[in-house]
Amino acid sequence: MNFQNRVEKLRVFMEKENLAAVLLTDPISQCYITGFEIITYSRPIFTIVTKQECILIVPGLEEEHAKLHARFDQLVVYYEHPEKASQGTDPIALILQCLQPLAGKGRLGMESRSLPFALASILQSKNWELADVSAEMNHSRAIKDAQEQDKMRQVCSLAVGSVQAAFRALAVGMTERELENAAASAIYQEASTLYPGSSFFTGGMNPTGSERTILPHVFSSLKKVERCDGLIITRITSLDGYKGECERTCFVGEPSAKQRELFEVMVNAQKAAFATIKAGVLASDVDFAARSVIQEAGYGEYAVHRTGHSIGLTLHESPFFRFDDSTILQEGMAFTVEPGIYVPGIGGFRHSDTVLVTKDGYEMLTECPRSIEELVFAL
Amino acid sequence: MNFQNRVEKLRVFMEKENLAAVLLTDPISQCYITGFEIITYSRPIFTIVTKQECILIVPGLEEEHAKLHARFDQLVVYYEHPEKASQGTDPIALILQCLQPLAGKGRLGMESRSLPFALASILQSKNWELADVSAEMNHSRAIKDAQEQDKMRQVCSLAVGSVQAAFRALAVGMTERELENAAASAIYQEASTLYPGSSFFTGGMNPTGSERTILPHVFSSLKKVERCDGLIITRITSLDGYKGECERTCFVGEPSAKQRELFEVMVNAQKAAFATIKAGVLASDVDFAARSVIQEAGYGEYAVHRTGHSIGLTLHESPFFRFDDSTILQEGMAFTVEPGIYVPGIGGFRHSDTVLVTKDGYEMLTECPRSIEELVFAL
Repeated sequence: MNFQNRVEKLRVFMEKENLAAVLLTDPISQCYITGFEIITYSRPIFTIVTKQECILIVPGLEEEHAKLHARFDQLVVYYEHPEKASQGTDPIALILQCLQPLAGKGRLGMESRSLPFALASILQSKNWELADVSAEMNHSRAIKDAQEQDKMRQVCSLAVGSVQAAFRALAVGMTERELENAAASAIYQEASTLYPGSSFFTGGMNPTGSERTILPHVFSSLKKVERCDGLIITRITSLDGYKGECERTCFVGEPSAKQRELFEVMVNAQKAAFATIKAGVLASDVDFAARSVIQEAGYGEYAVHRTGHSIGLTLHESPFFRFDDSTILQEGMAFTVEPGIYVPGIGGFRHSDTVLVTKDGYEMLTECPRSIEELVFAL
Repeated sequence: MNFQNRVEKLRVFMEKENLAAVLLTDPISQCYITGFEIITYSRPIFTIVTKQECILIVPGLEEEHAKLHARFDQLVVYYEHPEKASQGTDPIALILQCLQPLAGKGRLGMESRSLPFALASILQSKNWELADVSAEMNHSRAIKDAQEQDKMRQVCSLAVGSVQAAFRALAVGMTERELENAAASAIYQEASTLYPGSSFFTGGMNPTGSERTILPHVFSSLKKVERCDGLIITRITSLDGYKGECERTCFVGEPSAKQRELFEVMVNAQKAAFATIKAGVLASDVDFAARSVIQEAGYGEYAVHRTGHSIGLTLHESPFFRFDDSTILQEGMAFTVEPGIYVPGIGGFRHSDTVLVTKDGYEMLTECPRSIEELVFAL
């Protein structure tokens, strides 16, 4: 990945906005700038970008990890063992120390939605004027360059493989968790073979039955798959930090007439969204296209979420296919397309595909069965 | 779980601190008060506790989920579909609306480490004086009541089962991810049988070989298990939100003399920690006991992390077995005990056990082989 480009782009923005430095607190922004896939528990990690250098602040137990996998000019480490306590145990004090030489040289860029109030208060008490860089970071991340697009193609192909593994594993009497696990197990082999040097994971949810499929986000439970259940198989994969998403509504045994009807409305709404996507249209246009199909069928009130979200180093990022998002689509943006309908007593209906926006339309990254003929499993 | 007790305890604190309301932003604090296991992506969820009621603010697509699984007096929903947009699309506006009747009646409690700067600024602009309730929430969560202790016993027993499943699955040539997956797969059956109505997941890491085991926190990779590798099998399980942790260092084939030496130092350090734990001692005493063993053996500089952390609704919570943590241990606190030594070129060595603090010592929740005789696998 071209990290140097990213830092340079940020420095142009810093110049324009009179920022002496930028303090990144969002783990994903930090990964975008440093390449470091951060596992944060109770020990915070920070990145400071100045005009000259990129400083990474990590706890002692991430020191070797950072040296192996992160890009930085200066690594600042805080410790929790007495042998090295004299070098610093408090990351906040180290942030202040790094910033101190820049005092009076401009404002401090920060991410207002991840900067904790506690830290902001300390920075303000040191007379730093804070300026939000969230929009710039989000915009920068939204447009995927050629290398990122390649990575998205790869990870989306793995997501499709994972959904297909779920189809193969599907059996009456298995629990949602077992189904999820079978889907994950099957895909490890493929990922291991294709990308042996990469970091990879896959996750998902597989709500089953009319009561659970109406919940768009639930942990998979220990409920068993029953004959005549509708399912939403949701698979997310991550390859070197980049995410791919593929989701399919399917049925074990014959769906009812009502289930068929709702399935078709959902599929048609997704088609309408696809037909709208291209560089130059508004994000809200895509939501409008999908939503109109659902509204005309009389189910508008059950389409409780936006039609899609951007995707990249995070699963959900802006801009969104939402009725009030007026972002203009640009080539290289990556989105999920996933209109959903959730009718209590009948069930939830949602496919999700990941696409890249192109000049004249979109590139489908998750080619996988979509029709009801292909998605009824007579088990 | 006794949610009413938790809310009442918070209200006593509110009274004492002259808080008109508390705004919770940490998903775990919110789960502690409402029982709602929150899956947050790009849509925030907030809980407001006033003297009269507990208000949960959720996005539309969590409305049904919240009704099924959360405890609240008032559910406030924000929407992203035009049919219900008139009821509110901005959760921040809804927070302000909920707080408005309380203006002038006291300060606003908040969690300074999870309250985003952006939201804090808005609250301050509405003349709310902010007061941090983090310490109170952490303290409240640190002491597990009888029901929580039972849940911790259950989830820890599942964590042990997961480690033992990893032992059974271990094979030369499988990838770290495949090992992790086999460990997860095997445990689902047990969890499904014992706790069919519960939410459950298991995760972990399985770094293998001298280069990767020195990294305490890494995603499992696609690296293959090799003959003569040392491994750290790390299993975390979650049952109805409560976490259990069990980790074991083990070997595929005969360890070298140096590996044996370091293993024994680590085991003895853990024993020294166990022998120190009881109500009334300082958290730092436990770190000191383990660390002294490691220092005397000459490896102090390689013991780069604290000896353990509290565990409950989150995997890592305060207080910590850290050299500078002067918290007095109390009955009902739950901790991991996991001194680690990481020597470049040789490898990492760490067992982790979860214990409950008792009046005279501790209750071991993760009984599982610890000795080198039991942890060398001749594959």
